[in-house]
Amino acid sequence: MTAIDELVKLLKKLPGMGEKSATRLTYHLLATDKNFNKSLGEAISSIQDKIHPCPICGCYSEGEKCPYCDDDKRDKSILCVVEQAQDTVSIAQSGVYNGLFHVLGGAINPINGIGPSSLRLKELKERIATGEFKEVIIATNPTEEGDTTALYIRQLLSPFENITLTRLASGIPIGGDLGYVDKMTLARSMRGRIKL
Amino acid sequence: MTAIDELVKLLKKLPGMGEKSATRLTYHLLATDKNFNKSLGEAISSIQDKIHPCPICGCYSEGEKCPYCDDDKRDKSILCVVEQAQDTVSIAQSGVYNGLFHVLGGAINPINGIGPSSLRLKELKERIATGEFKEVIIATNPTEEGDTTALYIRQLLSPFENITLTRLASGIPIGGDLGYVDKMTLARSMRGRIKL
Repeated sequence: MTAIDELVKLLKKLPGMGEKSATRLTYHLLATDKNFNKSLGEAISSIQDKIHPCPICGCYSEGEKCPYCDDDKRDKSILCVVEQAQDTVSIAQSGVYNGLFHVLGGAINPINGIGPSSLRLKELKERIATGEFKEVIIATNPTEEGDTTALYIRQLLSPFENITLTRLASGIPIGGDLGYVDKMTLARSMRGRIKL
Repeated sequence: MTAIDELVKLLKKLPGMGEKSATRLTYHLLATDKNFNKSLGEAISSIQDKIHPCPICGCYSEGEKCPYCDDDKRDKSILCVVEQAQDTVSIAQSGVYNGLFHVLGGAINPINGIGPSSLRLKELKERIATGEFKEVIIATNPTEEGDTTALYIRQLLSPFENITLTRLASGIPIGGDLGYVDKMTLARSMRGRIKL
């Protein structure tokens, strides 16, 4: 196998990358600045050595704590529970949330063998037990697995009576068209309708 | 800048990669097998050290000659002239061509400062002058630049009277729909119509 075939084969394993895109990318890399390839290759090789999960919230972190846990300007009385570390990026970038995060590392999915013990739920309970939080926002995905996980968390946190438990609203996306929205989303946005 | 931001910034420079895809890919790499990242990083870093242009045809090559020039089973009397090295892959994979290649390294584009002297046209003339070729297929892209280059090659090779000069047919792609084909393509496929 030539070095070109080798690179195509590796690139094909990336998500959303087929034979054609991988080949195109390989030829792009062949024609590009050599220093860029060195930097990119080095960045990919070393990313996992530099980044590790934050011991507190499970977000990706380069230092001892992650940038969220380490930020004194964030509201330490609200906790947003997400499935994956990258979900925190979308939420933080939306600009409407300034609290802390808790990454579960997935959602309950018995078919794939992911039970509550595979997720960071024990750690969640421990954080809540400290009494530091007033509100917990459950931001798992609006899927069957995410809903199951949300219900499980409600159960898990039921002993803590002083905590407000909320869930992100589901519904028609902004700019969406009622005619093209799927039935499930429409049903949810109907059930979750708010008073004007 | 953190290692994550750094990798996102580098990935964003790849063709067809926006902020969102680059971020998604970075988080995928963070969660993937460490050995895979090492192999991919190493393959990207070293690709240009391993691959160089074939001194004969300009295709990418790992050995002294490229796999085409080195293959005794290929028909050495036909030459296919292409703009870029990756074009040879599509043509070779189509399975209908078994001759040699000549990579120009681009197409004539005066606006971008690419004149005939920037391309491997002198090398093309020298190869034809050896008298080894019976047919030259011009497979430059069906664009203004590709057409200009094709005309230039016709002029360049006019002294060699024994050579058949051909150009790839342009027209409606197989499986295409007449209603959706652009005017230029339709006009070309009309002008280039063949007798049944």
